[in-house]
Amino acid sequence: MYSIGIDIGGTNTDMGLVSEEGTIICRSNIPTNIYTELQPYVRDIMQCIGTMMKEHAVESIEGIGIGAPNGNFYTGCVDNAPNLTIKGVLNFEEEIHKYMNVPVVLSNDANAAAYGEMVYGGAKGLDNFIMFTLGTGVGSGIVLDGKLVHGSTGGAGELGHNILIPGGRQCSCGRKGCLETYTSARGIVQTYCELKDIPVSPEVNSKMIGELANQGDPIALKTWETVADQLGLAMANSVTFSAPQAIFLMGGPTKVGEPLLKPLQNAFDKYLLNIYAGSCKIRMSQLKANEVAILGAAALIKMKA
Amino acid sequence: MYSIGIDIGGTNTDMGLVSEEGTIICRSNIPTNIYTELQPYVRDIMQCIGTMMKEHAVESIEGIGIGAPNGNFYTGCVDNAPNLTIKGVLNFEEEIHKYMNVPVVLSNDANAAAYGEMVYGGAKGLDNFIMFTLGTGVGSGIVLDGKLVHGSTGGAGELGHNILIPGGRQCSCGRKGCLETYTSARGIVQTYCELKDIPVSPEVNSKMIGELANQGDPIALKTWETVADQLGLAMANSVTFSAPQAIFLMGGPTKVGEPLLKPLQNAFDKYLLNIYAGSCKIRMSQLKANEVAILGAAALIKMKA
Repeated sequence: MYSIGIDIGGTNTDMGLVSEEGTIICRSNIPTNIYTELQPYVRDIMQCIGTMMKEHAVESIEGIGIGAPNGNFYTGCVDNAPNLTIKGVLNFEEEIHKYMNVPVVLSNDANAAAYGEMVYGGAKGLDNFIMFTLGTGVGSGIVLDGKLVHGSTGGAGELGHNILIPGGRQCSCGRKGCLETYTSARGIVQTYCELKDIPVSPEVNSKMIGELANQGDPIALKTWETVADQLGLAMANSVTFSAPQAIFLMGGPTKVGEPLLKPLQNAFDKYLLNIYAGSCKIRMSQLKANEVAILGAAALIKMKA
Repeated sequence: MYSIGIDIGGTNTDMGLVSEEGTIICRSNIPTNIYTELQPYVRDIMQCIGTMMKEHAVESIEGIGIGAPNGNFYTGCVDNAPNLTIKGVLNFEEEIHKYMNVPVVLSNDANAAAYGEMVYGGAKGLDNFIMFTLGTGVGSGIVLDGKLVHGSTGGAGELGHNILIPGGRQCSCGRKGCLETYTSARGIVQTYCELKDIPVSPEVNSKMIGELANQGDPIALKTWETVADQLGLAMANSVTFSAPQAIFLMGGPTKVGEPLLKPLQNAFDKYLLNIYAGSCKIRMSQLKANEVAILGAAALIKMKA
């Protein structure tokens, strides 16, 4: 059975027709930020979906999964996402049902990534793991007993906003010291610039710091060691909650490889409570960076299966 | 239907015959630390249970729940508990089944307390909450979708060993800065002594610091404010994991009342990520201090029902 995965970003909306095995058969996209109303936006999404299905002679689909900022699993709505040009509480499920009577499942992008990893990626067969996504921000998705943890509000699994260093760096959420301020791409740049004693500028980015580290630059290496220590602490702390079998990592900054991953394993081992020693592995996402958003969204449908 | 709750402590073992409604019909106890073998220990426990049942003309029970240090839900064993004189991996389930063929459920005491709160106490009707127990140590039990979170190892829910202040106070677990080092009875005494600039001594205890605070002693008040800030931060961080409906508190130090609870609510509100505002209440355990261990243990049986 085929399914549809939709990744709603502030700028673009990516869609894919996904096979049972997790192959993206074809893709389509529309801009997000030209819309200010939900109805024409969903109309155009459904048109793309119809075209993809027709082209591949797919007559019916299992459902439509959507990864979106502030996507609420319980309500099927996107709740007041600050980076969308369509404002308010957006009932995607209801709007989509005007076109097609299939299950619609929404969640945020990090939750979708975690679920995608379980259904199609490196977490197949695991039923208890945590995914950390490092990017512009730091997201997380928690799987327990094979199910995504949504919590009472639908907003569970925001470990990027765990306060790691009380009174630390200012976070965009208004509080201080959140994990995100240290281990997001921006946080990594800030650490590098602090260590190098230069102002933060658009010329410095985390990819560059990764390349420098792999060339042996001592300040870049020190940057990744610092990030590894912070992320390793946050990961070890998360283990005290759900004692997962593995913690997965994905996102641009993780691509640096050894300069992050080696000190990360050391930090994780150092900070892990002894009763969990050896019980939780650090793993990299096995999904391709340019596929994870669509596959994760499509995987959400499997929750209703 | 009646059930049996057993609270295994390092010094004493308390048992109770518990009614369906959560009334402890009668109690019994034996010393724990005179035993070095499991078999005579369980034999004597079963004799007490038999006597209690006979006295109250109870012919059958729903099961036996056990709250024990290192009690493992998955295996029915107590795994190498450092404070027990009976060493090794103790298979209580198997040993009890030699006497009585009823369900046997084990968990650690904080998990049992959380479950007891849900079955018999203030968390009735809630299916997503966290219990923090403040005492010699700091324990926690996490309930999600109406079920205790045991994790992949059976050892989930050790939030007392979340590292709150990296590089902070030395913890008995070997690491530094665990929540327990600040908000256990001992941690509270240490904070008071540091603020008063006196050495830690057996003459100072958390109950006394509570009395002093309620009499208006400024250093005692400052102690509870400090503890409230640390606990409030840990509680707010835990919300990012499972978005609970409530966080419950129990244990000796919570008895101080206002000097802790008022600044705790303020700290929690200050540290809580905005998306959770108003969604999670702070609540005190509604079970009596001298009943919670037996009721919590007895409640565990309801997991098998």
